[in-house]
Amino acid sequence: MSALTDTRLVGPVRIVGSGLLGTSIGLGLRAKGIDVILDDASPANLSLAIDYGAGRSSRPGDTPQLIVVCVPPDVTGRVVAAELAAYPQAIVTDVASVKVQPLAELRAAGADLSRYIGSHPLAGRERGGAVAGRADLFLGRPWVVAGHDGISYRRGSPMDDLILDLGAIPIELSPEEHDRSVALVSHVPQLVASLLAKRLQGAPASSVALAGQGLRDTTRIAASEPELWVQILGANARSVVEILRAFRSDLDGVLAALEEPTAPGARRELAEVIAAGNAGVAAIPGKHGQDRRFSQLVVLVDDRPGELARLLTEIGHTGVNMEDLRLEHSPGAQIGLAEISVLPEFEQRLTDELSSRGWRIAGAGL
Amino acid sequence: MSALTDTRLVGPVRIVGSGLLGTSIGLGLRAKGIDVILDDASPANLSLAIDYGAGRSSRPGDTPQLIVVCVPPDVTGRVVAAELAAYPQAIVTDVASVKVQPLAELRAAGADLSRYIGSHPLAGRERGGAVAGRADLFLGRPWVVAGHDGISYRRGSPMDDLILDLGAIPIELSPEEHDRSVALVSHVPQLVASLLAKRLQGAPASSVALAGQGLRDTTRIAASEPELWVQILGANARSVVEILRAFRSDLDGVLAALEEPTAPGARRELAEVIAAGNAGVAAIPGKHGQDRRFSQLVVLVDDRPGELARLLTEIGHTGVNMEDLRLEHSPGAQIGLAEISVLPEFEQRLTDELSSRGWRIAGAGL
Repeated sequence: MSALTDTRLVGPVRIVGSGLLGTSIGLGLRAKGIDVILDDASPANLSLAIDYGAGRSSRPGDTPQLIVVCVPPDVTGRVVAAELAAYPQAIVTDVASVKVQPLAELRAAGADLSRYIGSHPLAGRERGGAVAGRADLFLGRPWVVAGHDGISYRRGSPMDDLILDLGAIPIELSPEEHDRSVALVSHVPQLVASLLAKRLQGAPASSVALAGQGLRDTTRIAASEPELWVQILGANARSVVEILRAFRSDLDGVLAALEEPTAPGARRELAEVIAAGNAGVAAIPGKHGQDRRFSQLVVLVDDRPGELARLLTEIGHTGVNMEDLRLEHSPGAQIGLAEISVLPEFEQRLTDELSSRGWRIAGAGL
Repeated sequence: MSALTDTRLVGPVRIVGSGLLGTSIGLGLRAKGIDVILDDASPANLSLAIDYGAGRSSRPGDTPQLIVVCVPPDVTGRVVAAELAAYPQAIVTDVASVKVQPLAELRAAGADLSRYIGSHPLAGRERGGAVAGRADLFLGRPWVVAGHDGISYRRGSPMDDLILDLGAIPIELSPEEHDRSVALVSHVPQLVASLLAKRLQGAPASSVALAGQGLRDTTRIAASEPELWVQILGANARSVVEILRAFRSDLDGVLAALEEPTAPGARRELAEVIAAGNAGVAAIPGKHGQDRRFSQLVVLVDDRPGELARLLTEIGHTGVNMEDLRLEHSPGAQIGLAEISVLPEFEQRLTDELSSRGWRIAGAGL
């Protein structure tokens, strides 16, 4: 494949909306030499994205092969309908993180659905805007194609071409499956993280000083932007509500158990929820879609430039492949902990080799 | 300080319970030459910890200066009471992750509280047992000392000595403050992560295939051991319930808003919860207790041994200090993303230097 020098898409590709996703798609296609036409309701945003090299402005007579609508979820349906009407030859897609609502809006508006196919790249950054755009943003990321019975595979093929030309991985789901899936893996976790982090507001400094990596991990995504999330949650309310209701029912069970922790069955209730959580975590595919468990080795690393690189270089010399790495810092300590994941069969050897090179191992285990 | 060659503690120190914490304390004190007496209800566990070098077995006539009880929360009070009675000269502490209940049990049992002071080191691993024990487990970690009005600072000073000799950071809290704090930063996040992960049980593979780092982070601690957590949650039920009730009340508000997402006030309700979550995350102290925000640079790293080390070595050459590092893998991709945190003023320079060395930057921003 790598010997081929052309692209699947022919172009020109028209991108409407020059935020993070629109600019990144433009940069990725431009890097492959495809003609990209950019448009944005804001002339300032548009010229910024053009300055970044994400494409050119529209010219009379442009006949785009594919139009990618990259605007916020609540205006996606309207903008897609306008593009379908304005460019009667083009296939139109969108990248909104909900898929049922835009399709329903287009249906209600009587749009030409034989040229529309929704999609959703699972890529992004906490910060948006053209400035954050990167040609490689989609490399290796899942990109959902949410088809419907009004469009054929052959008609929709520019969509596959776009995804493959950008190095992403196409995943086919119905709009309903998509919305239920992202509610489960993204929207509900976002809300739950926000609700959990909200409890920390106004907490005494002496309490949050005890925070460890667990709290940091469970609340990290709660730092996300409210405006965008209100739109996403509103547009996927039905799927989110369904999961949140089941969550609340479990929460009620836990609360009842904790209100009378010595009552018969209370401990079992708690144990079952935690065991079910174990099973849920195990269902998340790991690196490369593997379902393996790794052993973790915790190595103490002095907080000096170059120390972590030295550790990783020496791990490289042992020949043991590092599957994952996380860093952890204790408040007040001039020392970091590097948690290194390796296949269980390599744990002992790596422990021995690193110890013999003078590294301090603070813990190990599955 | 580093010129001093002796230790603060005189010893012998008696450790009851040779699991992860007991063994680690023993190893840490033995590494400093302090005489450590180990005991455990299980002779097999005891001899394993002794084999690991965490201490020696008890001898008639031993007069420990300090006794550290490292047994599960539900038997802590009983074991502490027995130790206070058996060693009438010794100061006795425990390391249970709840502090109100053991003190209440000792009070009810009429124990000599003038020699008891509870404590809780915030250190540990997901896996327990003597095998996981490490002399450096407590280095740089917070270690709460939960005093009460029945013991003086001078009487309790061996406790400070223990913490400082093990390289941990003493933090003084009342038992009630401690239990409320750990409910907030540890016990409630644990339960919420379990409840969230439980939703993934039985989910279609095509749904969990869309999982990103957000889901992995929010559910990671849900992999913890049910048995221990049932004890911890049961022993701290009152503080946990208080926080969970507030959480449920917020959850009810969110559910109501999502059940009628276009009703007046619904969007505001969602926005306020997410904004409150933003504020909560900002309240968690960062590395070295700083409250600074870092810029994140995402660099694409080929999944080959040595590539990450090469990246970190080159970052070291730029002279920019890396504040944090996380790795992220996309399912199916032979490429990893290294998210590097640096002070915002260094972001542009690092981006330029890495780009000029051929690294692909997939994203950047605060």
